[in-house]
Amino acid sequence: MTLRIGVIGTGAIGKDHIRRINEVLTGGKVIAVADICEAGPKAIAEKYGVKTYKNGADLINDPEVDAIVVTTPGFAHKDPVLQAIAAGKPVFTEKPLSTTAADCKEIVNAEIAGGKHLVQVGFMRRYDKGYNQVKAMLDSGEFGVPLILHCTHRNPEVDTSYTTPMAVHDTAIHEIDVLHWLIDDEYESAQVIMPVSTKYTHSKLKDPQLMILRTKKGICIEIEVFVNCEVVCEDGVVKMPAPSTPITRKNGLLSTGIETNWKNRFIDAYDVELQDWINSAGKGEINGPTAWDGYLASMTADALVKAQTSGAIEPITTGEMPEFYAK
Amino acid sequence: MTLRIGVIGTGAIGKDHIRRINEVLTGGKVIAVADICEAGPKAIAEKYGVKTYKNGADLINDPEVDAIVVTTPGFAHKDPVLQAIAAGKPVFTEKPLSTTAADCKEIVNAEIAGGKHLVQVGFMRRYDKGYNQVKAMLDSGEFGVPLILHCTHRNPEVDTSYTTPMAVHDTAIHEIDVLHWLIDDEYESAQVIMPVSTKYTHSKLKDPQLMILRTKKGICIEIEVFVNCEVVCEDGVVKMPAPSTPITRKNGLLSTGIETNWKNRFIDAYDVELQDWINSAGKGEINGPTAWDGYLASMTADALVKAQTSGAIEPITTGEMPEFYAK
Amino acid sequence: MTLRIGVIGTGAIGKDHIRRINEVLTGGKVIAVADICEAGPKAIAEKYGVKTYKNGADLINDPEVDAIVVTTPGFAHKDPVLQAIAAGKPVFTEKPLSTTAADCKEIVNAEIAGGKHLVQVGFMRRYDKGYNQVKAMLDSGEFGVPLILHCTHRNPEVDTSYTTPMAVHDTAIHEIDVLHWLIDDEYESAQVIMPVSTKYTHSKLKDPQLMILRTKKGICIEIEVFVNCEVVCEDGVVKMPAPSTPITRKNGLLSTGIETNWKNRFIDAYDVELQDWINSAGKGEINGPTAWDGYLASMTADALVKAQTSGAIEPITTGEMPEFYAK
Amino acid sequence: MTLRIGVIGTGAIGKDHIRRINEVLTGGKVIAVADICEAGPKAIAEKYGVKTYKNGADLINDPEVDAIVVTTPGFAHKDPVLQAIAAGKPVFTEKPLSTTAADCKEIVNAEIAGGKHLVQVGFMRRYDKGYNQVKAMLDSGEFGVPLILHCTHRNPEVDTSYTTPMAVHDTAIHEIDVLHWLIDDEYESAQVIMPVSTKYTHSKLKDPQLMILRTKKGICIEIEVFVNCEVVCEDGVVKMPAPSTPITRKNGLLSTGIETNWKNRFIDAYDVELQDWINSAGKGEINGPTAWDGYLASMTADALVKAQTSGAIEPITTGEMPEFYAK
Repeated sequence: MTLRIGVIGTGAIGKDHIRRINEVLTGGKVIAVADICEAGPKAIAEKYGVKTYKNGADLINDPEVDAIVVTTPGFAHKDPVLQAIAAGKPVFTEKPLSTTAADCKEIVNAEIAGGKHLVQVGFMRRYDKGYNQVKAMLDSGEFGVPLILHCTHRNPEVDTSYTTPMAVHDTAIHEIDVLHWLIDDEYESAQVIMPVSTKYTHSKLKDPQLMILRTKKGICIEIEVFVNCEVVCEDGVVKMPAPSTPITRKNGLLSTGIETNWKNRFIDAYDVELQDWINSAGKGEINGPTAWDGYLASMTADALVKAQTSGAIEPITTGEMPEFYAK
Repeated sequence: MTLRIGVIGTGAIGKDHIRRINEVLTGGKVIAVADICEAGPKAIAEKYGVKTYKNGADLINDPEVDAIVVTTPGFAHKDPVLQAIAAGKPVFTEKPLSTTAADCKEIVNAEIAGGKHLVQVGFMRRYDKGYNQVKAMLDSGEFGVPLILHCTHRNPEVDTSYTTPMAVHDTAIHEIDVLHWLIDDEYESAQVIMPVSTKYTHSKLKDPQLMILRTKKGICIEIEVFVNCEVVCEDGVVKMPAPSTPITRKNGLLSTGIETNWKNRFIDAYDVELQDWINSAGKGEINGPTAWDGYLASMTADALVKAQTSGAIEPITTGEMPEFYAK
Repeated sequence: MTLRIGVIGTGAIGKDHIRRINEVLTGGKVIAVADICEAGPKAIAEKYGVKTYKNGADLINDPEVDAIVVTTPGFAHKDPVLQAIAAGKPVFTEKPLSTTAADCKEIVNAEIAGGKHLVQVGFMRRYDKGYNQVKAMLDSGEFGVPLILHCTHRNPEVDTSYTTPMAVHDTAIHEIDVLHWLIDDEYESAQVIMPVSTKYTHSKLKDPQLMILRTKKGICIEIEVFVNCEVVCEDGVVKMPAPSTPITRKNGLLSTGIETNWKNRFIDAYDVELQDWINSAGKGEINGPTAWDGYLASMTADALVKAQTSGAIEPITTGEMPEFYAK
Repeated sequence: MTLRIGVIGTGAIGKDHIRRINEVLTGGKVIAVADICEAGPKAIAEKYGVKTYKNGADLINDPEVDAIVVTTPGFAHKDPVLQAIAAGKPVFTEKPLSTTAADCKEIVNAEIAGGKHLVQVGFMRRYDKGYNQVKAMLDSGEFGVPLILHCTHRNPEVDTSYTTPMAVHDTAIHEIDVLHWLIDDEYESAQVIMPVSTKYTHSKLKDPQLMILRTKKGICIEIEVFVNCEVVCEDGVVKMPAPSTPITRKNGLLSTGIETNWKNRFIDAYDVELQDWINSAGKGEINGPTAWDGYLASMTADALVKAQTSGAIEPITTGEMPEFYAK
């Protein structure tokens, strides 16, 4: 039984998910696409013979469409997600769930009111092998309770449109989701420490930044802005491995490559993520990050952005998780 | 256009390939299975609704079967491979191509006589990410010409049915294929050095063994029986990475795990291998290891087994590669 | 010309320095020891034929003593150091310079008033090969300006006499000295973050602790309590290596040992430190950590201890370094 | 009680040993030097105020000289070593003990006839920390019996005066001594495998070479010409660590430095070696490599050089170790 999928938004990430579903993964098939621009759907229709829509709502209400993938820009996620909930169809939306915490909360409320688990947010790191290896080791209990997380990410460069708040919204946002999942906990407060900036930055960007999150269980997370992750536990330390690349000896150096392109770094995670969604959406279930996770990420990002300018420890007040999202 | 596949042999590896084609990979579908025992096909028919045959030849000649996968025991590879060639259908056979060099040569000759590339041998290491990373670095020319290969493999244990010649036929056989592909060369001679045996071995097994192969270009390969691979080149050294596993600190040791189960070690390579075969067989092509590679492996294994008892440097005389197999 | 040395304090570290000077290093010789207990000096006199004193001041004023080593308990460092300054003799004192910032300042003032560089404090990490390798790489400019330092130290265990403030006075005190030397900067503020404590701690010790120091140049230092050190610079990252120990493969793990005993970890640094002091004291110079460094460490430790309970960012106000200590 | 040392040969290594004894080590003092050239001794006499001799025999017979260091060219080692034995004085000679196996045997016989242990050969690797760490782990029995040794050495470059036999006499000679000490065994046969040579070599040098030694216990040693060492044992694998150097991240590579200068690589071993000799020679003992070790190295090197041209497995027939050298 093939899952018939409609995709809303045909930009780079939309095209990539369509290719993935039709050419790599099994069990799903894109049968319709929608975009306010006509060029995107037309090219895809020529390649895969799908139906095309100008309006996302029409695609969602097409009775042949079983499930929806939303790959529009972030500010345009809210409407199709709410419409899919209204139509009772599973919807996978790229992150962020929405651009404000209030909109995220509205989606959460709509999903709970509908009584069916329908929304998955594209936090693909939960599907990465390295994070899952670390989570399995933590869950085993062999290393005791986590106490501190040290996380670092060093992008090779960003362009001048990247400003101070984007270090939260575009970069730390991934850590915000994956870390609370990793340690099965929620955030309580946020602080941002600003060291002297590198000469390579520009006037609108403080770089680097040291973000500190504290969870409800008292675990302290220090993020020097993302991909590595080391968890200090009571009985040992667990550190995420770098991806395997050959080791070379040349010019007096013993070296291994560092993957600096996040698309390559997480290429497998995207496949695993969407295959998992196809498999569970076909059975009327959602296994991955939920709308509640999207809301948590939004609230946490807001606190971090506030902390970037206040220099203080800012509280994060998401309230209790609704029973609806308990696993 | 889905490739309709028939599978001959429904033991463990046969069942695994059927699951892989039907549940993981895209573009192919198992529609028929054959086995001299009835139980295997029956269980698979119940699960996937496929046709069943007692006789491989009947499956091969079923006009609805586009391509064949042979997963019978090694001694029963030759007949279905020859029959598939006769029927002009692509055939993927698990290694070894056949159990004697003479039989391998017969298959090579039949394929050449038929004039179509139809046979792929299941040397799945060519599809492993680590080997491909090393090959790409060698092919780049950045490290100069390869001079020496150091390869090591340490199995945690084998049972007492594993005897001295099996170190060649069951273990080094993988290296035999993947190494000449890695350096784009063919073997010229073989030597086996027998150190003092470990107390953990039994009377029929000399363990460890040091195998030395020399290629036509004069590259020397030293195998301490397989998974790691380090290539010494003129301008540097390239070493295959171990698979990524988390790094832990505990009990005064900084450790990473070693994958000791080869099925897990190469789990991705199996998927990539069969997907590649489905894609190319559907287009009437063969990209992977050929019958000629199967023949080379057989001749090299024979020389190594002879060297295990002679203690001498044994020649390997495969003759020139037929033009038919040139890429 | 052998430097004739008098040692005050004949406990474990005193005995070890005497052995070092007499049996390992060259250019110096212990000729007198002092201790308020009689047993220590007596045993040393029997072994090395040295003079013995009950009173440190008498030893300092012995005209045959060229230079002094102070290895009494920390609270008893101040008097002999001031007496050595008064006598115009070089004095090497184990850390801390003194137990209060006020006493440290008094020593600084006395040394400046005397006009001669006479005091060296036993911060031996400046003599460790790993720190020096990192410093050389930073000083080369190849990695750009340092921005963030991540430092970690994980003691295997401490006994119940070890309380929260001792994480500063006994543990972080080493980092306090060596890090500002490493980056050639001084501290401006201190903060301590207290994660949930491990179940292995006791009621008087919060463990672990995350200490954050900011320097006058804006470099942020995060200490998860000491031996490793990673420096994030504008053009790259430099990380101190762990000491070399053999790599083993056993029981499915690839492991290297971690030195958990700090005495072994820094065994070479002690030799290098004292040899350097003997060499320079003999020439009337001081190359190592000065009284001013001892004062800085004391002031920084006070701020960290205050931050352990306040939870706030505490200022460190040492004032400008006196011209006397400029290099 | 200072050991009064005479040094014969004032070239680079002689000067370095004199500096080491007088400025770094404790317990010894160079009081006389000899050289057939006058310039060397004169400069040293000016610096250290030592006696000078033109003739090594006169220095050896000077009653004020307690012990001898021989740092002449290799072909001039035999005479002063024999004269020191005749004079009953401890003698430390740089490797090789002598340039022919026959001369080595003559020295061995003279030392046995004299009945006193007087000769130490400068195989300094036995004093290297890495080798000693590996030896300690092997001796512990935790890893079981050694079966195979993989050793590699890659010199960055050699000049054109370096020819095929020098790969044995100047390079593998160190491994020849240190490896049989490491596994407490003696050699039985030698083979040399010559892969295709790198384009960077010249007509008189086959490079690289793969040397294979078999010991009396059946341990197989494969040397791709020297510094690293990995020992495959029954219960695990032990690998010598590379020296610690900082780890850097830059330009997409995670790198550590490789020490390519052997003088730096073994700088500590030289100090430890000579200090050990001063300490034991002062007590009338020899702890380090003996004349018998020098003879073994010479016999093994002869077999390897023969194997370089024969391509065969060459026997090594040193006979039983004399009781005199048993420890």
